[in-house]
Amino acid sequence: MPRLRLALAQTNPVVGNFSGNADGLVAAARRARDAGADILLAGEMALSGYPIEDLAAQPSFLRAAHDAVPALAERLEAEGLGDLVVVVGYPDGPFEPRLLGSSNAPTAVAQNAAAVLQHGAIQARYAKHHLPNYSVFDEYRIFIPGDELLVLRTARPGEPAADVALIICEDLWRDGGPVGRVLQADAGLLLVINASPFERDKDDVRLPLVTRRAQETDTIVAYVNIVGGQDDLVFDGDSVVVDGAGAILARAPQFEEYLLLVDVDPDEATDTPLPEHVARVDITLPASPDPADLARDVAVLPDDREQLWNALVLGLRDYVRKNRFPSVVLGLSGGIDSSVVAALATDAIGADNVYGISMPSRYSSPGSKDDAAELAERLGIHFSVQAIADLVAPIEEQLQLTGTAAENVQARIRGMIWMAESNMHGHLALTNGNKTEVAVGYSTIYGDAAGGFAPIKDVPKTLVWELARWRNEHARSRGETEPIPVASIEKPPSAELRPDQTDQDTLPPYELLDAILELYVTQRLGREDIVAQGFDHDTVFFVAKLVDQSEWKRRQGAIGPKISGMAFGRDRRLPITYRPNL
Amino acid sequence: MPRLRLALAQTNPVVGNFSGNADGLVAAARRARDAGADILLAGEMALSGYPIEDLAAQPSFLRAAHDAVPALAERLEAEGLGDLVVVVGYPDGPFEPRLLGSSNAPTAVAQNAAAVLQHGAIQARYAKHHLPNYSVFDEYRIFIPGDELLVLRTARPGEPAADVALIICEDLWRDGGPVGRVLQADAGLLLVINASPFERDKDDVRLPLVTRRAQETDTIVAYVNIVGGQDDLVFDGDSVVVDGAGAILARAPQFEEYLLLVDVDPDEATDTPLPEHVARVDITLPASPDPADLARDVAVLPDDREQLWNALVLGLRDYVRKNRFPSVVLGLSGGIDSSVVAALATDAIGADNVYGISMPSRYSSPGSKDDAAELAERLGIHFSVQAIADLVAPIEEQLQLTGTAAENVQARIRGMIWMAESNMHGHLALTNGNKTEVAVGYSTIYGDAAGGFAPIKDVPKTLVWELARWRNEHARSRGETEPIPVASIEKPPSAELRPDQTDQDTLPPYELLDAILELYVTQRLGREDIVAQGFDHDTVFFVAKLVDQSEWKRRQGAIGPKISGMAFGRDRRLPITYRPNL
Repeated sequence: MPRLRLALAQTNPVVGNFSGNADGLVAAARRARDAGADILLAGEMALSGYPIEDLAAQPSFLRAAHDAVPALAERLEAEGLGDLVVVVGYPDGPFEPRLLGSSNAPTAVAQNAAAVLQHGAIQARYAKHHLPNYSVFDEYRIFIPGDELLVLRTARPGEPAADVALIICEDLWRDGGPVGRVLQADAGLLLVINASPFERDKDDVRLPLVTRRAQETDTIVAYVNIVGGQDDLVFDGDSVVVDGAGAILARAPQFEEYLLLVDVDPDEATDTPLPEHVARVDITLPASPDPADLARDVAVLPDDREQLWNALVLGLRDYVRKNRFPSVVLGLSGGIDSSVVAALATDAIGADNVYGISMPSRYSSPGSKDDAAELAERLGIHFSVQAIADLVAPIEEQLQLTGTAAENVQARIRGMIWMAESNMHGHLALTNGNKTEVAVGYSTIYGDAAGGFAPIKDVPKTLVWELARWRNEHARSRGETEPIPVASIEKPPSAELRPDQTDQDTLPPYELLDAILELYVTQRLGREDIVAQGFDHDTVFFVAKLVDQSEWKRRQGAIGPKISGMAFGRDRRLPITYRPNL
Repeated sequence: MPRLRLALAQTNPVVGNFSGNADGLVAAARRARDAGADILLAGEMALSGYPIEDLAAQPSFLRAAHDAVPALAERLEAEGLGDLVVVVGYPDGPFEPRLLGSSNAPTAVAQNAAAVLQHGAIQARYAKHHLPNYSVFDEYRIFIPGDELLVLRTARPGEPAADVALIICEDLWRDGGPVGRVLQADAGLLLVINASPFERDKDDVRLPLVTRRAQETDTIVAYVNIVGGQDDLVFDGDSVVVDGAGAILARAPQFEEYLLLVDVDPDEATDTPLPEHVARVDITLPASPDPADLARDVAVLPDDREQLWNALVLGLRDYVRKNRFPSVVLGLSGGIDSSVVAALATDAIGADNVYGISMPSRYSSPGSKDDAAELAERLGIHFSVQAIADLVAPIEEQLQLTGTAAENVQARIRGMIWMAESNMHGHLALTNGNKTEVAVGYSTIYGDAAGGFAPIKDVPKTLVWELARWRNEHARSRGETEPIPVASIEKPPSAELRPDQTDQDTLPPYELLDAILELYVTQRLGREDIVAQGFDHDTVFFVAKLVDQSEWKRRQGAIGPKISGMAFGRDRRLPITYRPNL
């Protein structure tokens, strides 16, 4: 049976940076060819970056993408890599708009495509059939679905051929999707290119899917994913090759650029007639001398907390790097949220690029001030102190503020301070809010909610504590200083905006709150459905009200700022004005 | 030929307020029946409000919708209105999810439906076929398309029947859509229920479409639209009935709740066999005595500027009212933007509910201070003055700020002041930014960009001036005080954050800037495409850079706040991290 050497290129593209992305692909191609690979498989949209949102309807963007594909093929040829078969994803178009007779609204004109490059030219092309339009995906909005499948009949001169099918991401997920037709075409190897973002426990879903598809079709499946942070998303890589029995042949590590090499032995091509809407293209493989044997390369994934930590670190690092910020600034309160964000930032871009500011008020406990200083000391980050009392007092007096309005001024002066430092020095301002706080509106808009990137905005409070404990354990296990002061983990959480305040004056205990938010926000159950699960009626209704009509929104008259930050899946996208209870 | 009396109910629903929305429909039904109507036609999603976003996937929301439909039918019957045929839109479900075998992602489970109610029960049901997923619409994301058409065979006892087809909104727009099959079914009357948001010049597209469809099918078309503001959108009503020759039989005014009555004479039903996938339901019309003749009711639309002004007023009024704010607060600089927003707010909710604050700094010209006071005087709104010098100085000194960082503190102290007033008194804080300023980032985040609703965020600067002039002319023509001081319209625009600053120190002239933004942001042309139209190369590239990678975003490290505000269509939805120029 034919033997193919595959190279799966887990690259980290930047949206719109066609030349930079092509550089990474050429470098991967050179390493692949040097290692004797026949086929280099890069990710979905690896040439353009992903997601591209409405850039998919911009003529100049599509022109740039359209030009970048043959340019890449020619460059590979010019650099002596023309023999290698290179599969790469890109947006193709413009085509006739898919939608709408009479409307003058812009609509989808592009396809989510893959090109097969060899000998300086495009040998074949495939367009994704199934366009996800749920959770973080809006592909039906921006792409036209493909309607033809592709099989590459690959062979070295004088050797038996293997049929290799090619699909894109969601095509694999859909029951009754293209995979069924691939089976009819009798392909021995299925290539799947992906841009599949990290979610908590995604590895518990994705690998079983790949395995099941491989077994269902008795076909080797080579699944490549991009890697890296792009705005709210982070792609984890975790590329994998599984044989028709469901055994893992190779697996790349998460969260880093990687070239995964593996030899596969697909079944020989048969004379089975092609089903309808399947095109077959002949590809002559490079006439390689027998390459050196490959070591088995199967990464083992770390536990869930470490995966999540790594995802947060990479997402933050890439947001800083891809937007070209030199450094970050954040407020340090001595509490758990700012401690975890500071530790993440230090892991992401190095202590020397992290600027922490302690901004004590008359309500800040000495413990909090000490904890902030100790955190900075342990992390080795820049640290400064700006007391806010003298800045808050003139405002409170002139405006005669009391109650929440006065408390908010404290938070807003703090926000103003780190934004001013950002303006003076070019730092990216980080926001320390966690998912629980964001969901219930337990923060001050333009105050602690101010900033350009919120690393833990999709991490519930209880999980923030877990991450802090894990990070300290991780340091201990490696003989390093624990980054987060124990006091910051163990003391009762408080906004410290009035004397002796704690979060639980206003909110249910966090364990309970997070359990209700998981059901209400993430699983979208209704109030009564949650009560039926055994939760206290009044607590559920109180929490749901905070989420839907939160007091801060009503009182302050403002909808939360759209802060970029890590998101692992998308929660409910809801109307602003909404009256479930009238 | 049979004569039918139609009543088109242009109601203003609130999303999720099923009982309140039903109240409005019952009131319309009573008026319709009193006027001898046979059929009451309400808008798309008139029972639930529109758009419902991901509420369409929330079981408790769908249950509430599902219960609200028979409840409405029973209530109409109980109130003696059971004879009337009532057509109303609502979300129906949950059904089997449309998408995704293996993925655990939430997906569409509902349909965008219409129910035909009579005699206390649901007599028939239709589900929208074509789900728009462009511009402001995301329906393919949240709904399952319908696949069966509906024809109502309506007759009074002993009289000839008329076939009445029913479709929903986008179904009408799509060439080759359900309208073609309606033609085959030989219906004499086409009912179309809609939730069609206002856009500038939408009336120049929508009425010709309705007319063309009526002519193509030689069928009377009755087109009903909801009215009212919902978050970023405003629905303008403008319901219309057109006969098969394309003549307007009746037209409702824009921007108000209205019951439009019209008599139509559809062709008699024929024995034409039904095409596939078309259901026919028999409906017995009320046995009315001959009702009194109707006066011809054809509204004439005002000119474009007045339409836009009315759209902005209604959008703002409904945002305030539906979110239950008692009042609004805004900063008054004496400039054109805050003057127009204050005038809009006064028209929307009355002078007594509008609070203007002048916040002069050492750089504010005496003219600006006077203009702000004069505006408040002319409008009759509440007015106060808060000088910011003593609040800014301690911050500048303690943080040793210079340049842009110092300028931003002035803007942020102002934002803090109106947010504090909002916190103290419950006002909705308005943001005065216009579309031009938002597009190029010419504002201070957490400063003048702070607030809960931005009435003119989709109005380019040059159009803000036009609106101001129109509003003054409008007042003059009615013998009223011109609301906006002439100086605010005629003086050169300035942020007044440093001595002798004007906007044109930093930006191209607004006429030029708006022309480029129209091409770059709205029409999505690329830089070179715009230059090819004759614009200066450097200016185009400068403006495009402001938009894509605007300096405020890079320097301040923050993405613009998601401010709710009027949007007439949606501009490009773009990645945050994006490098077109590398």
